[in-house]
Amino acid sequence: MSQTPAAMRIEHDLLGELAVPADAYYGVQTARALENFHISGVQLRLYPDLIRAFAMVKMAAARANHECGQFDRNILTGIEGACQELIEGKLHDQFRLDVLQGGAGTSTNMNANEVIANRALELMGHAKGEYRYCDPHDHVNGSQSTNDAYPTSLHVGIALGNARLIAAMTELVQAFRAKGREFGDVLKMGRTQLQDAVPMTLGQEFTAFGETLAGEIRTLKAIEQVLCETNMGATAIGTGLNAPPGYAEACTKALAEITGLPIYKAEDLIEATQDTQAFVLYSSCMKSLAIKLSKVCNDLRLLSSGPRCGLREINLPAKQPGSSIMPGKVNPVIPEVVNMVCFRVIGSDLTISMAAEAGQLQLNVFEPVIAACIFEAQTLFINAARTLRVHCVDGITANRDVCAHYVDFSIGTVTALNPVIGYERSTELAAEAMKTGKGILDLIREKKVLTDAQIAQVLDPVTMTGQKRAE
Amino acid sequence: MSQTPAAMRIEHDLLGELAVPADAYYGVQTARALENFHISGVQLRLYPDLIRAFAMVKMAAARANHECGQFDRNILTGIEGACQELIEGKLHDQFRLDVLQGGAGTSTNMNANEVIANRALELMGHAKGEYRYCDPHDHVNGSQSTNDAYPTSLHVGIALGNARLIAAMTELVQAFRAKGREFGDVLKMGRTQLQDAVPMTLGQEFTAFGETLAGEIRTLKAIEQVLCETNMGATAIGTGLNAPPGYAEACTKALAEITGLPIYKAEDLIEATQDTQAFVLYSSCMKSLAIKLSKVCNDLRLLSSGPRCGLREINLPAKQPGSSIMPGKVNPVIPEVVNMVCFRVIGSDLTISMAAEAGQLQLNVFEPVIAACIFEAQTLFINAARTLRVHCVDGITANRDVCAHYVDFSIGTVTALNPVIGYERSTELAAEAMKTGKGILDLIREKKVLTDAQIAQVLDPVTMTGQKRAE
Amino acid sequence: MSQTPAAMRIEHDLLGELAVPADAYYGVQTARALENFHISGVQLRLYPDLIRAFAMVKMAAARANHECGQFDRNILTGIEGACQELIEGKLHDQFRLDVLQGGAGTSTNMNANEVIANRALELMGHAKGEYRYCDPHDHVNGSQSTNDAYPTSLHVGIALGNARLIAAMTELVQAFRAKGREFGDVLKMGRTQLQDAVPMTLGQEFTAFGETLAGEIRTLKAIEQVLCETNMGATAIGTGLNAPPGYAEACTKALAEITGLPIYKAEDLIEATQDTQAFVLYSSCMKSLAIKLSKVCNDLRLLSSGPRCGLREINLPAKQPGSSIMPGKVNPVIPEVVNMVCFRVIGSDLTISMAAEAGQLQLNVFEPVIAACIFEAQTLFINAARTLRVHCVDGITANRDVCAHYVDFSIGTVTALNPVIGYERSTELAAEAMKTGKGILDLIREKKVLTDAQIAQVLDPVTMTGQKRAE
Amino acid sequence: MSQTPAAMRIEHDLLGELAVPADAYYGVQTARALENFHISGVQLRLYPDLIRAFAMVKMAAARANHECGQFDRNILTGIEGACQELIEGKLHDQFRLDVLQGGAGTSTNMNANEVIANRALELMGHAKGEYRYCDPHDHVNGSQSTNDAYPTSLHVGIALGNARLIAAMTELVQAFRAKGREFGDVLKMGRTQLQDAVPMTLGQEFTAFGETLAGEIRTLKAIEQVLCETNMGATAIGTGLNAPPGYAEACTKALAEITGLPIYKAEDLIEATQDTQAFVLYSSCMKSLAIKLSKVCNDLRLLSSGPRCGLREINLPAKQPGSSIMPGKVNPVIPEVVNMVCFRVIGSDLTISMAAEAGQLQLNVFEPVIAACIFEAQTLFINAARTLRVHCVDGITANRDVCAHYVDFSIGTVTALNPVIGYERSTELAAEAMKTGKGILDLIREKKVLTDAQIAQVLDPVTMTGQKRAE
Repeated sequence: MSQTPAAMRIEHDLLGELAVPADAYYGVQTARALENFHISGVQLRLYPDLIRAFAMVKMAAARANHECGQFDRNILTGIEGACQELIEGKLHDQFRLDVLQGGAGTSTNMNANEVIANRALELMGHAKGEYRYCDPHDHVNGSQSTNDAYPTSLHVGIALGNARLIAAMTELVQAFRAKGREFGDVLKMGRTQLQDAVPMTLGQEFTAFGETLAGEIRTLKAIEQVLCETNMGATAIGTGLNAPPGYAEACTKALAEITGLPIYKAEDLIEATQDTQAFVLYSSCMKSLAIKLSKVCNDLRLLSSGPRCGLREINLPAKQPGSSIMPGKVNPVIPEVVNMVCFRVIGSDLTISMAAEAGQLQLNVFEPVIAACIFEAQTLFINAARTLRVHCVDGITANRDVCAHYVDFSIGTVTALNPVIGYERSTELAAEAMKTGKGILDLIREKKVLTDAQIAQVLDPVTMTGQKRAE
Repeated sequence: MSQTPAAMRIEHDLLGELAVPADAYYGVQTARALENFHISGVQLRLYPDLIRAFAMVKMAAARANHECGQFDRNILTGIEGACQELIEGKLHDQFRLDVLQGGAGTSTNMNANEVIANRALELMGHAKGEYRYCDPHDHVNGSQSTNDAYPTSLHVGIALGNARLIAAMTELVQAFRAKGREFGDVLKMGRTQLQDAVPMTLGQEFTAFGETLAGEIRTLKAIEQVLCETNMGATAIGTGLNAPPGYAEACTKALAEITGLPIYKAEDLIEATQDTQAFVLYSSCMKSLAIKLSKVCNDLRLLSSGPRCGLREINLPAKQPGSSIMPGKVNPVIPEVVNMVCFRVIGSDLTISMAAEAGQLQLNVFEPVIAACIFEAQTLFINAARTLRVHCVDGITANRDVCAHYVDFSIGTVTALNPVIGYERSTELAAEAMKTGKGILDLIREKKVLTDAQIAQVLDPVTMTGQKRAE
Repeated sequence: MSQTPAAMRIEHDLLGELAVPADAYYGVQTARALENFHISGVQLRLYPDLIRAFAMVKMAAARANHECGQFDRNILTGIEGACQELIEGKLHDQFRLDVLQGGAGTSTNMNANEVIANRALELMGHAKGEYRYCDPHDHVNGSQSTNDAYPTSLHVGIALGNARLIAAMTELVQAFRAKGREFGDVLKMGRTQLQDAVPMTLGQEFTAFGETLAGEIRTLKAIEQVLCETNMGATAIGTGLNAPPGYAEACTKALAEITGLPIYKAEDLIEATQDTQAFVLYSSCMKSLAIKLSKVCNDLRLLSSGPRCGLREINLPAKQPGSSIMPGKVNPVIPEVVNMVCFRVIGSDLTISMAAEAGQLQLNVFEPVIAACIFEAQTLFINAARTLRVHCVDGITANRDVCAHYVDFSIGTVTALNPVIGYERSTELAAEAMKTGKGILDLIREKKVLTDAQIAQVLDPVTMTGQKRAE
Repeated sequence: MSQTPAAMRIEHDLLGELAVPADAYYGVQTARALENFHISGVQLRLYPDLIRAFAMVKMAAARANHECGQFDRNILTGIEGACQELIEGKLHDQFRLDVLQGGAGTSTNMNANEVIANRALELMGHAKGEYRYCDPHDHVNGSQSTNDAYPTSLHVGIALGNARLIAAMTELVQAFRAKGREFGDVLKMGRTQLQDAVPMTLGQEFTAFGETLAGEIRTLKAIEQVLCETNMGATAIGTGLNAPPGYAEACTKALAEITGLPIYKAEDLIEATQDTQAFVLYSSCMKSLAIKLSKVCNDLRLLSSGPRCGLREINLPAKQPGSSIMPGKVNPVIPEVVNMVCFRVIGSDLTISMAAEAGQLQLNVFEPVIAACIFEAQTLFINAARTLRVHCVDGITANRDVCAHYVDFSIGTVTALNPVIGYERSTELAAEAMKTGKGILDLIREKKVLTDAQIAQVLDPVTMTGQKRAE
């Protein structure tokens, strides 16, 4: 390292000197991590929510440090300016570290500290690297450790992504509800255990798809609360070593203002610093959504099975030729890819569980892989929700004749007779229908089980499907 | 089936006649399922919470049916009496079905219907099997389907088990907190990434064990809310076919009164009937607890590693000789078995995820395996919590000398100098300590980095560990 | 412990004295573990393969010890006699320890050592507890540690269970193959992505069910090889401390003779003692079987969906009424319960993965939960295979008319025209069929695409389904 | 689509016309899929093994088609030339489809068909798009379906990656073995259940790290066999519709020649076409490796814990400052990131399990997510193996004094006395050592348990660690 190319600047740390590109906003510690971690090829900048969140956290810390007298307004203004730029999406290309990195997020935290310090220096009229005016450790990371700044940034970043996820899923729910209304008068057979059950409407079925996903959205919204806990002020292990009195509270307050989220300070900072329950629970909610979304896609594929030899109650819009050999074949490619996303998210939930369980003593060092999994899952879900809505749900049509035929042909309507003739006699009728191949209605008439007036009442579609008749 | 032994009675169903032991409270459908399902060997009666819950649900349904004019007070009184006995733990030996059974719980539901009907018949002065006076289908299962009665019973049963689980875990938390107080003055080194960090007290560490589990308890308590949703009134697929007007509301109200839980009716009964999110979320909370409890046990095993060549900061009580070959060896067998319980519960969570994802159209047929996994997990956790508390935590002692030696010997206290001499100069001191093998305090004195007064203030244990000095 | 009831005898260990029932074959260490582990309620004796395997291992060790001069023929004969009884299924009621136990299997190993020693003492003409004549540690456990005897016993026990599992699965495969022959002339449409594809026979479909499971059986058979590795002679950590020269080889040879398995000694005993790969791989094969068996059951449920509104190509035998509300409904309860078994086994595979990953340094202490999961999975699979065969596959019938109708009605046969008229023109025909609702054959004739002779050749069922026509 | 920009060409398919960039080698079906699937952002070209494998498969199919008289030498030469370029790494930028895509791989297959057809056209002297001379369907995809070409390409591509993975892991094994030799004379205490056990050498410990990974490599090598099965000739569902006689055998032979792998044809093509066991088993072996590698990294982190308050038997090379707050702290960042990779791979194995289980009837449509997970896992492992070797293992040093001190200080050596004085008296000695804090050797001498000569023999390090003394 005896000579430096013109385009490099020399920085140093515990391990010695290292040349950094002169125009880089990051510094020596980021440079070391860039060398150490060639693992997944996925870079931090692919998850802008994380970078924005880090800027918010550093801005909050700077304000709290200034308030506690740790540094003057000049430094604060510089740091705030740099953070604001990151929040606006600038300089994200300075975050090229691999998302899979050892060190409990220290490299990511130092990346943020270095970029913010160097940009602040410029805004303050200094050159990059003149850290005596604004130091990555002593100022940008002032009163902090990776062990509070990193998990807090993850919490905030995930909350930012969660808002986008909820928006995308809400649009999907609305698409299902719209179809629910459109198909409100399409009578069909419900099925349990893949066997014919009793009548319902296709509208009820699609409304249920929407409502079941709406339930997941409510869960995602509710879980945001655990993400709003911060351990800022904990520093290295939660004892708050080196954080001045009042800092933790001031930082928490500032972060709430900056993010607009109801951020609150953890009660036991030692516990909070080693804890990853928020990630585990958030990921569990993502898994819950994956389970539900996968089930819905399974149903869409099943109901549209055909075109001639399946249930064929609905038609999905044709998006592309389905086969390289079978002419005219169109496949349910959109629900299929959403199923795949769901399987991926469920796998990631396991990765997160293992990473969380592997925490030891005062810290969980595996938070980077947790973060990578959650940000990926949010991205996949947002894309999947939009894709499913635009390329599939919006264009679904009903095969009314097929649905109607099933109801007429089915034996399942016999259930409606229970209150009139009892379970045992209904069973006999069903058995006879099975044996003879006749329809239930035919048998009822043939055997005069019910009068025509009774039939009209008991087998009225509106009644059978539990809908209230508009008076 | 032409002749029946004296000790048998003949019942019949869709498939024909079948002999049932004359003294059995269960009937033909239970008998068929007993023949069909020889799978796990684990019988329903091992999970009394489920049987009690079923009795509560059937009692609620009976009251609602009576209120809606479905049957007279005589039948209601009989059913109520039978249910009350089941709630009190009687007749559980009539529930011998395998917990792994096909059919979405129909066999379990019919088992309950048949036992309640036959016991009610006796209470009403009739013989077993005289179903014309009180019928398993038309009365005990009146206005119900397995598809509402079974999931509702699972919800209630899990809530009953959850209360017992919370009680057991709360006692464990209290044991950790007590140790936290006992070890409040034992100074030790905190560790992050298994490397020496900064000082803390052993009391803080044990308090954090307690608080982190307390956080899980809060989550388990909060999730109970999703278990309080019922779809009673949905009948087969949620359309409410055959349930009289007002029944759903009356049944919900009665169930709330009987269970003492804030039971509420699902908004969309079609969605609720096919939904398994409550189980998924509850299991996720169990998984979260497993992750945390496993981490705590890992820490206990690590801190007690030794007796001579480990961290040996604490001693676990000796419960049994540890080795068949190594004399005198005592192993941390209690935390170990708790770890195993945690791994098991995490595996069961996956089983539940797969079962939930496999639901199709209007029903999830795999709820029996979900139930088996959750009830098993609750049982394991309750036993594990008690075992860990009684056989381990309560008897833990501290090796104060070892803990103190680490603090004196460590380099990590250099962190406390940051605010006084800056991160960079502190780093130089740390590097010199590493190279020379000297202690930080020695170096500070040798190099006159701080005055004695400064040392007393900056390296004061109470300050360093973030505790407030009692004035 | 100052007075002992008449029916107790006093034993002692590192922790002091303890009373043991006088008629118990187990001793003090088993008694301590019985106190310590009230966890799952599942007892060792439920897995006889494990107890038999332990007896085989102890017999082999005794023979090797005798050969190496560690003790005289008298003791050998006593131990051999006791082991033989256990192999024959006697005294299994002495193994009541919880399958979930801390201590890396030490309690189970000592349970075996104590039972064998006491039974040997009786056979040698001494009273139980007179360990100076035959000692659980010095003789039965001679030259061993739990850390070699336990994993070796698990290997052997799993191999014993594997043979039974393979037998049960082979019968199931034969049942599928028989149906494949029975349905060899039932033409039907194949389906990919749930969309109509090209014709096949139902016989081909059922044969494939059989062959796909046969592939799993081959895998289970092949993996047995990893179970045949033993680390006997490793003692505590693989260094062989206290095992006399030649013992390891002699014990391995004896174990091969006793078990009839191609047992071989691990190359690196230190590595083998901490290794759990054999369990991981065996469990992976069980998971693979679970995935496949679940897929087959899904298909059976799908193909039998109906009876009027589904694919209804096949009928499963009716085993029990399917619904507590819907008269006449019959559900695919047998495949359903097999699905549940598969989900359970997949969950257990995760438990095993976590337990294996948690091994530390010279040992994996979590082998008991691994064992519990594997023995449970074998049991579930053996029962599931028999249940599926007897209660379902053997009784399946085909709906020939439905299958034939699909082929006639389908568009998918157009694929057979590719070689004659090209993919592009075939696509146009398919599109026209979709639009007009006509059948492909009608269109071909209407548009004179092929001559009658060509039709007979190109659309010949035998040709299209890839079968060779018997000349 | 009424006007086309100069730089576009018009293609058409079942759904109508679509403009494709004039210089694109891909065609209309790729273009549709590019529109449909914006999911993960990860493109096919990131996995060159897959693209190379596809080219090999298409080359083999072309040779077989030519041999069976399906097209002339001219077309064959064009296709071979195009495939050869892809094998050499050219034109990979034409594979920009999302790795997560619906349609069972049809889009990927058509991407390959289109790129190869258009490049072949150029090589044949025609313009892109002049498909009458060489058609993506009729020629490049001739006698194939996605359902045979795609899984076969995955098999081959995974085998290519497996070879690179094995090479990287073998280098890692060698690094561990080298350290094993280097540390051959460093006596230390072995540990079981984190408790002191008996002596071993650090060399034995590192050799075991190497050997345990070597076992995984053997497994990866052996499993390659399942990847060598091909279903070429199956076409759509395994019935071989449209494939000429002799084609399947010729294609299999050609593929074996091109790949150099022992490719063989599946026995039952219908079964093979729906089967995903090869992926499940291969992924299981990756999971097994992940479990093992994670355990090794856990051990490295544990053995290097310190620098003052841990086990500190070894030192990992310092790669970067470990903390943003704690000066001088150096963390085990390299093993940590490898742990994360392992957790990720285990999660992906679950994704693969779920995708495999979700196959239905004649096909598993979820193979794309299976492929994405396996190729990602191979990449992560290859990078992790190199990183761990270069940045960590190669630079590990031993703290000989610390290791020696533990042996002297420990009680565990008492085990070596069993054969001399028996388990029971050894236990008493151990208990006294524990109580008094004395060393075992001191007690032995103090109590004259052994003579000096006996001590020299029984407690000889070479003997105790099971090494053979060089005579």
